[in-house]
Amino acid sequence: MNLRKAALAIYGAALQAAEPRAAIRRVLRREGDRLWVGGREYPLDGTRVFVVGFGKASAAMAQALEEVLDDKIAGGWVTVKYGHTAPLQRIHLHEAGHPLPDANSIRGALEILNLVSQAGRDDLVFCLISGGGSALLELPVPGVTLEDLRATTDALLRSGAAIDEMNTVRKHLSEVKGGQLARHLEHEGAGPQVVSLILSDVIGSTLDTIASGPTAPDSTSFAQAQSVVERRGLRDRLPASVLEHIERGVRGEVPETPKAMDSVFGRVQNIIVADNGIACEAALREAQAQGLNSLLLSTFLQGEAREVAQVFAAMAKEVIRSQHPVPPPACIMAGGETTVTVRGSGQGGRSQEFALAAAIQIAGMVEPNVVVLSAGTDGTDGPTDAAGAIADGATLARAAERGVDARAALANNDAYHFFAPLGDLVITGPTNTNVNDLMLVLVA
Amino acid sequence: MNLRKAALAIYGAALQAAEPRAAIRRVLRREGDRLWVGGREYPLDGTRVFVVGFGKASAAMAQALEEVLDDKIAGGWVTVKYGHTAPLQRIHLHEAGHPLPDANSIRGALEILNLVSQAGRDDLVFCLISGGGSALLELPVPGVTLEDLRATTDALLRSGAAIDEMNTVRKHLSEVKGGQLARHLEHEGAGPQVVSLILSDVIGSTLDTIASGPTAPDSTSFAQAQSVVERRGLRDRLPASVLEHIERGVRGEVPETPKAMDSVFGRVQNIIVADNGIACEAALREAQAQGLNSLLLSTFLQGEAREVAQVFAAMAKEVIRSQHPVPPPACIMAGGETTVTVRGSGQGGRSQEFALAAAIQIAGMVEPNVVVLSAGTDGTDGPTDAAGAIADGATLARAAERGVDARAALANNDAYHFFAPLGDLVITGPTNTNVNDLMLVLVA
Repeated sequence: MNLRKAALAIYGAALQAAEPRAAIRRVLRREGDRLWVGGREYPLDGTRVFVVGFGKASAAMAQALEEVLDDKIAGGWVTVKYGHTAPLQRIHLHEAGHPLPDANSIRGALEILNLVSQAGRDDLVFCLISGGGSALLELPVPGVTLEDLRATTDALLRSGAAIDEMNTVRKHLSEVKGGQLARHLEHEGAGPQVVSLILSDVIGSTLDTIASGPTAPDSTSFAQAQSVVERRGLRDRLPASVLEHIERGVRGEVPETPKAMDSVFGRVQNIIVADNGIACEAALREAQAQGLNSLLLSTFLQGEAREVAQVFAAMAKEVIRSQHPVPPPACIMAGGETTVTVRGSGQGGRSQEFALAAAIQIAGMVEPNVVVLSAGTDGTDGPTDAAGAIADGATLARAAERGVDARAALANNDAYHFFAPLGDLVITGPTNTNVNDLMLVLVA
Repeated sequence: MNLRKAALAIYGAALQAAEPRAAIRRVLRREGDRLWVGGREYPLDGTRVFVVGFGKASAAMAQALEEVLDDKIAGGWVTVKYGHTAPLQRIHLHEAGHPLPDANSIRGALEILNLVSQAGRDDLVFCLISGGGSALLELPVPGVTLEDLRATTDALLRSGAAIDEMNTVRKHLSEVKGGQLARHLEHEGAGPQVVSLILSDVIGSTLDTIASGPTAPDSTSFAQAQSVVERRGLRDRLPASVLEHIERGVRGEVPETPKAMDSVFGRVQNIIVADNGIACEAALREAQAQGLNSLLLSTFLQGEAREVAQVFAAMAKEVIRSQHPVPPPACIMAGGETTVTVRGSGQGGRSQEFALAAAIQIAGMVEPNVVVLSAGTDGTDGPTDAAGAIADGATLARAAERGVDARAALANNDAYHFFAPLGDLVITGPTNTNVNDLMLVLVA
């Protein structure tokens, strides 16, 4: 059994499951004027279909919708990050700023709101949501400017606010985030059916977090936003317009974001079309198809890359010692996103660093052989052209033959230059998707 | 199901499996003049039994031998750490220095060599080996003093030498380490049967590492010892006697430590009576008996405690999300030893810090409930009177009610004072054994 080939095939299955067009196609089935989305039927007879979208993968998602619903699409507008385009026939493609929203983000939001205002009770609106959508679709509340929003983000970042704290504040300065796009779509009861097809780059795929949850119930409040301002000492650091809007919200003078029981979600179906869980389950099926005794440990993996890698090496050793947690030929995998605390001046990313740290731990384990693969699904691990790296029990020895020291490379956060000369970088090119990372260890 | 109670029972099963007397009793079976040790028969008819031992758990191990072989014991000598005593009838108990060997370590070694020199071809010698044995049994080679040994250890530590590098050097300065006790026992073919009963505190239980492997084949050489000296720049920092002995060894003027095919091991049986693997497997059986879908991930777990803890929390989340890697009610466990990089001024140990870091990640996970337990088997986690700690999805909230902040406690390495007021320390008292740590997460 070629373990490296098996590892790459398993990773390939994850990538395929995360591919935006394939992901959309999986949940859509059309027979003439009947359409099933995620198992629920939507009649197309006399129905106009509108498509809106925002996110880095949303152009490719729109392509899939055009393939299935071409003749039914009455109008469409998708906002992507500059350069993240794909050829579309009926849906207008628009480019805007990311990670910071710009004027085109606002223009796109206005166009989308204008477009969906045409959709009536018998119509169907698809929202194609993917990572980056939070910046690409933006419409600040009246009185708050784009500049105010940027100043707020800056101040939150400098204050050490956590990502959920930042989102709590930003949802309450927007007309579209935190379920508010769904409110616009609902037209006070006269609105269309809404199907949000969501490609999630968020660990755990919490609907209110992906692209700031424009069609999902919000779990945060103006009161919580104000708590963040207080807790992080931001009263003197935020624009006056922002503070004023939050205070008005706390006093109930502007509407709260819609919550789970709100009727605006009555005709909204949110469907995750791809995420780390779906990608990992595809990887798991591929591993099983390869005859490997396979375990999916988690799709919530986090922690310092080099430390988490030690857990994977430790499991490989146990497979060999005692056939726990699964007997060889074994494949143990997890999805998620580790972090790297940069201390050196080298080049790499969390996935490459994971593979390097694992390589050190499995050095010499060649009979049975141990292979570790760690790679992202977006094709870009850190500021490199690699998605990740692959290592086995002989990797350290092969590097040493070339005078490359693994421990020194790890100490310098230089996994890229460790793996590059070995030909052990995993290179996919841009994948136009992002469902976080896959890490796996094989023993056989 | 009371998950906390289940977690404590599983940990209890691990402790029980690691208990020295029970561990010895498991591998010994006697019927009159017939004795089976680890499945192999040793006739006792006309056989004199000698018992020697060294290590922190060796007094309790000796008790078990006396219980089984009382009338057959012709002589015995066991060296333990000061205070690690237990009442013995026929076997002499001796106390010596640990972690640094002292004059009593040498006296004990000489007594042991003298005692076993009486054992002939028809006799049986038991060696009771446990953690700490490397310091407690010491006999430097001629020309090297105890002071030289200490200076060598100091210099190695200061040079940043890894533990395997230190052991390579020290084995080649000793008359007993690295299989050399077996050589003494063999009497050039006239020696007794030798059974080493080993309680391992070494991850992976490599025979040549536990107590420096006095009766196990050595995998290191004088040449490697010299490489360590060069690599670590120690030529000018080691005592002249030490450098000279290593050089003589390299030139073949003093005998090399015995290797795997050496005939001195022909009548030696090394048996691991307890180690982390045996303890974890007992814990696994208990978890299964409790009706939990159980996985043993590894007995080689290492890495920074707070990072490894995140992997355990991530698995709990996945059990709830997708029933991977096992469906609830679930128990996922691992053994090993994590590390703590101390940055704060609080009190704790690696097991308590693991539980605290996990508690932060599982906060709010109460339905289904998640319980994390992390505890050592020696009863002393870091410089505390606790073996470890237990946490669940409500731990953070309970602490917050008392004004105790988990993140602040973790930042200050102060897990002890986080768990103590909650009554969530795991306290066993000294267990007189050490087979590393157990970490587990339960979801139900």
